[in-house]
Amino acid sequence: MSQNKIIFLDQKQIPTHYYNIMADSPVPMDPPLHPATKQPAGPQDLAAIFPMALIEQEMSKERFIEIPDEVRDLYRLSRPTPLIRAANLEQVLDTPAKIYFKYEGANPTGSHKTNTSYAQAYYNKKAGIKKLVTETGAGQWGSALAMACKHFDMECEVFMVKVSYNQKPYRKTFMKLFGATVHASPTNLTQAGRNVLAEDPDSPGSLGIAISEAIEVAVQRDDTNYSLGSVLNHVMLHQTVIGEEARLQMEMAGDYPDVVIGCAGGGSNFAGLSFPFLRDKLTGVKKDLEVIAVEPASCPSLTQGKFEYDFGDEAQMTPLIKMYTLGHKFIPPKIHAGGLRYHGMAPTISLMYNIGAISAKAYNQLEVFDAARIFAQAEGIVPAPESSHAIKEAIEQALKCKESGEAKTILFNLSGHGFLDLGSYEMYLENELTN
Amino acid sequence: MSQNKIIFLDQKQIPTHYYNIMADSPVPMDPPLHPATKQPAGPQDLAAIFPMALIEQEMSKERFIEIPDEVRDLYRLSRPTPLIRAANLEQVLDTPAKIYFKYEGANPTGSHKTNTSYAQAYYNKKAGIKKLVTETGAGQWGSALAMACKHFDMECEVFMVKVSYNQKPYRKTFMKLFGATVHASPTNLTQAGRNVLAEDPDSPGSLGIAISEAIEVAVQRDDTNYSLGSVLNHVMLHQTVIGEEARLQMEMAGDYPDVVIGCAGGGSNFAGLSFPFLRDKLTGVKKDLEVIAVEPASCPSLTQGKFEYDFGDEAQMTPLIKMYTLGHKFIPPKIHAGGLRYHGMAPTISLMYNIGAISAKAYNQLEVFDAARIFAQAEGIVPAPESSHAIKEAIEQALKCKESGEAKTILFNLSGHGFLDLGSYEMYLENELTN
Repeated sequence: MSQNKIIFLDQKQIPTHYYNIMADSPVPMDPPLHPATKQPAGPQDLAAIFPMALIEQEMSKERFIEIPDEVRDLYRLSRPTPLIRAANLEQVLDTPAKIYFKYEGANPTGSHKTNTSYAQAYYNKKAGIKKLVTETGAGQWGSALAMACKHFDMECEVFMVKVSYNQKPYRKTFMKLFGATVHASPTNLTQAGRNVLAEDPDSPGSLGIAISEAIEVAVQRDDTNYSLGSVLNHVMLHQTVIGEEARLQMEMAGDYPDVVIGCAGGGSNFAGLSFPFLRDKLTGVKKDLEVIAVEPASCPSLTQGKFEYDFGDEAQMTPLIKMYTLGHKFIPPKIHAGGLRYHGMAPTISLMYNIGAISAKAYNQLEVFDAARIFAQAEGIVPAPESSHAIKEAIEQALKCKESGEAKTILFNLSGHGFLDLGSYEMYLENELTN
Repeated sequence: MSQNKIIFLDQKQIPTHYYNIMADSPVPMDPPLHPATKQPAGPQDLAAIFPMALIEQEMSKERFIEIPDEVRDLYRLSRPTPLIRAANLEQVLDTPAKIYFKYEGANPTGSHKTNTSYAQAYYNKKAGIKKLVTETGAGQWGSALAMACKHFDMECEVFMVKVSYNQKPYRKTFMKLFGATVHASPTNLTQAGRNVLAEDPDSPGSLGIAISEAIEVAVQRDDTNYSLGSVLNHVMLHQTVIGEEARLQMEMAGDYPDVVIGCAGGGSNFAGLSFPFLRDKLTGVKKDLEVIAVEPASCPSLTQGKFEYDFGDEAQMTPLIKMYTLGHKFIPPKIHAGGLRYHGMAPTISLMYNIGAISAKAYNQLEVFDAARIFAQAEGIVPAPESSHAIKEAIEQALKCKESGEAKTILFNLSGHGFLDLGSYEMYLENELTN
């Protein structure tokens, strides 16, 4: 028996503050623009769907923002999450590299998404809101918000992208178990949904469409707000508890990453792990840190998109935000990593990519599932298809080390487990999956 | 923020020894009998299907048995598992009781079963065995053995009880992902299976039948052994790492249980948690400790069965063992807690029940799912239907405390998560489930 494979923290070590990367960005962020006037959107423009506390976080430049006791208390249901040395994977790959992963799938709903759902539900509850409406891709976000709403005794309505709704039927049940109402989007319940269905009755849906539907429902009632599971600054902010914990754990392991990797759809789990490390790069403490966002080749917003103002949703209801985007009308292919089927990328991540602080890679579906299988067999954890994009890049990095003889330290985020994605694995094992 | 909700241990605190309750039993165990001669079966009678190291453990009276380094190293993939204070559940129930649970669902394959699968695969590998054949109910055991075999580069063949195979299709995929071959039992591949199908082509199967099929395949080849996921003494032994860890964690919490609860099918998770505490009762350290095994009302081996010699399998291939049994021909109703559909009970547990060291309760399916929902909504973890039997009793105990005003300390084993059981939850939520 050599060193620890799993590094646990005590609950006292749950972070007390979120980290806001905008405090350390060398360039400011272009402001969101009002969809009609195209002028910079102010707090009041967002007040119809978000509580003021979240709007303030969205625009904040404070470096560290205190986590409310009520939210930290909820984090204690499952945080700190373990940091795991993938020693068996290293052995299988026969690499001199050291591979660590932060395991957010150890969270109750199976992914990192509760880090922000607890916070969002808390601030909305405090603002007197009775119901939250949201979109979800693969269902991780919807599950997390359903659970948070249940805790705060609020209603929850979820528009789940239709292709994922059909691919992952257990996700719907999960949300229902926590009392949420779930629709397969596009629906006939909203104008946005009806417009899409009129054009294509067989539309597989997209996160952009589901967002439009959710916002449309949310704006109709004063006691109802919209809640977003990724992209926005305040969501990235809440996710930084991942990286703050990982910093402590890497220190306990007597190590520091050379490469930090996360999969990226809207970008929240990637930002959550990487931003607290990126702080060291931006402030000159660790200038040569590599930070890599990994996306599906079929929805390559960073690697193929344009850095420009675009809508966050299909029906053009959100403010225009400056981001890498494939265009808000882009409907991604029906890949099983439903959480990554988003046309844009979080503005903070887009900015970091634009200034060269991070890089990006894209992989296709089959090579990602191949990597997932290698990982599962080595480490015993079945990863979510989304997170498997990060695994693929971690394996690539480890194999490069094998060639070069370098003993790099690689850290990736295992943002969710794949227990509810086994239908997709079944197709993969039966050779029914394509790129 | 008050006390810790989750108590983690360091990996150095993974137990070094298994605890053998037979060392402290006030009465000896009646020996297994050879199925043909009805004479006590010796080690050589078991050698056709088990390696000698496991046979020795099966018959041992040593109090503590050292865990091989190779097995402890594998435990480090996911152990120690957390001990969690169910503070939110306490609040929902408005009880003065303190409720703790040991969360074995935090293990890779989602249940406690890897505690013994690693050990069994290790000893078989060391004995030169190339393939293991087994039965599985809900699939937790099959998954755990598939993973262990993958690690030791052995083949794995699983006979999965047909009703569970159909109820929980993701389990089959899980086992396939780890390279196992999976059949829905009864099959046409064995004489035992063909006999059952001849009598009832629509047989839902049972653990007793699946065991017969697995043994029939295992005895055919010298390089192939049979592996059992519960019932036998060596399996109970391996599971005691649960209770040994829990003892340390309760100590860290500054607490000691008044009541220890586990669900019981064959009995392994129940024994795993409770035996290390029962040691204190048997040795007089904690004479008033209550230990409760919880079983389905539809398969009530302890509460309704007879304490007598019976076969462990349907086709009468195993030795006769002295246990509480409903008869080896008993086919339990198609409840969703497939892991509890066994006609008998582990001999060690049967003995403890017979001498009054433990008690037993039985609950029906709907009240168990009701309890599961209450727990899930409070703690955020969806429990396996099997484990939910323990939850039901923990809630009953907590409500009794509410009435009496007693602040008892309740500890139960959450042996597995329910992510792969959401099909059953869907039926429950749609009112399609009966007792």
